[in-house]
Amino acid sequence: MDLQKLITEIKQKKSYLCVGLDTEFEKIPKHLLKSENSILEFNKSIIKATKKYCVAYKLNIAFYEQYGSKGWDIIEKTIEHIPSDIFIIADSKRGDIGNTAKMYARTFFETYNFDAVTVSPYMGLDTLQPFLEYKNKFTIVLALTSNEGSSDFQMLDTPDGKLYEVVIKKVAEYANDKNIMFVTGATNADKIVNIRKLVPEHFLLVPGVGAQGGDFSEVSENGFNKNCGLLINSSRNIIYASNDENFEISAEHEAIKLQSQMEQFLIKKGFIK
Amino acid sequence: MDLQKLITEIKQKKSYLCVGLDTEFEKIPKHLLKSENSILEFNKSIIKATKKYCVAYKLNIAFYEQYGSKGWDIIEKTIEHIPSDIFIIADSKRGDIGNTAKMYARTFFETYNFDAVTVSPYMGLDTLQPFLEYKNKFTIVLALTSNEGSSDFQMLDTPDGKLYEVVIKKVAEYANDKNIMFVTGATNADKIVNIRKLVPEHFLLVPGVGAQGGDFSEVSENGFNKNCGLLINSSRNIIYASNDENFEISAEHEAIKLQSQMEQFLIKKGFIK
Repeated sequence: MDLQKLITEIKQKKSYLCVGLDTEFEKIPKHLLKSENSILEFNKSIIKATKKYCVAYKLNIAFYEQYGSKGWDIIEKTIEHIPSDIFIIADSKRGDIGNTAKMYARTFFETYNFDAVTVSPYMGLDTLQPFLEYKNKFTIVLALTSNEGSSDFQMLDTPDGKLYEVVIKKVAEYANDKNIMFVTGATNADKIVNIRKLVPEHFLLVPGVGAQGGDFSEVSENGFNKNCGLLINSSRNIIYASNDENFEISAEHEAIKLQSQMEQFLIKKGFIK
Repeated sequence: MDLQKLITEIKQKKSYLCVGLDTEFEKIPKHLLKSENSILEFNKSIIKATKKYCVAYKLNIAFYEQYGSKGWDIIEKTIEHIPSDIFIIADSKRGDIGNTAKMYARTFFETYNFDAVTVSPYMGLDTLQPFLEYKNKFTIVLALTSNEGSSDFQMLDTPDGKLYEVVIKKVAEYANDKNIMFVTGATNADKIVNIRKLVPEHFLLVPGVGAQGGDFSEVSENGFNKNCGLLINSSRNIIYASNDENFEISAEHEAIKLQSQMEQFLIKKGFIK
């Protein structure tokens, strides 16, 4: 999916919601456990319940990988159930040197038809190159994350600003907003003002709203740009809204709640009518 | 495998060689392509040819992951063919927040019985915790890598030294040499002197000798400690030593060459007789 299509989808759906499919076997409703592939069944139900209200799904690869090759089959089948007008993110936080990065890019952009993949910048800019060679695919670089440990290294002072600021500046010089986005945790909502100054054009993928304590309004106010420029991710609050037989309805309600807030915000900003 | 066992193996085999199983379908000998699972057959042959001369194997997960669930099956079966007295490293460079890191740890230490996993430190110390909870398993943290881009962020100045130095110091304060190692690229052999001052006890996993231009003697001289403290990785130079019907013999010869150099060095240092 290209940038323009993503922006069009945001306008049409009046939503910049990304639903995180962080599916845990231990947390899915008991009645689904009878199914032969209960994680896939759960994902299918969540997609059916939320697809009208979100513009993106994010699959946290770790949750599937723990089941070995079976988990990767679930990833493949889950993607098949996501409509083609929805942006699909592999949250894998990969990052390695040229030859290996090429394999990772091939994994997520060819073997599995993801639109975007999250990567860690630690090893340097050359690790991004193989991902950037794919047209209409996005590389989402970790900038400032939502965990406590984000202060250990990301907030270190360097001659050119904090480490996360240097990462953003160097990556933005290296590639443009047509194929790069940044991960910026919602628990650092105040710093999104600063990030917007560094990258006025790029989309930001913002996890951590809700369960991790990030504030929706603050993130939206601080991160909005002329293209909306935000994908706000919610995982647990939506997919585990309830764990009884009506879990799909609960998930749908939570997705609608967030979509409505987003719609109000987009109207306020004059982005939609 | 625990630290003491690894040291014993190094003494017995007179080797600190790690063979990198970076197997590419495009590079394996043509006569193996008739096989139903030629990558696995290749790995089995390489293991058979080199297992006497190395103390560790490193599987570069990207190379397998690109084949989807089939690739993960090859990982599983490859591990089954590695003798239990050899240290097995998942080179996956994962790194994520608590809950997700827990899943990654489960993947590599439970679903697949790896002894160690490489991780990226960018997201902070709390991302290491779930890995450290496994006894006799090692977390190998990226410190200074062998690619050109390693200078982009790892070499940035901070008030406490270069970023890679801060990573090493903070991680070494957070966990000890019984469950932490560091990745230090052989192309930065001169900086290994400095790294040894920061972490006199920890093992270093050193890729980049040979194909990437790192110097074996310099790395060994600069990195050696009282427990040897080194695992030097060689991938392409060994596994693709030739690609004809005698590829196993060529691989064995290359492994022997490196093992002999290591034996000479260990004798010189009085580590073995």
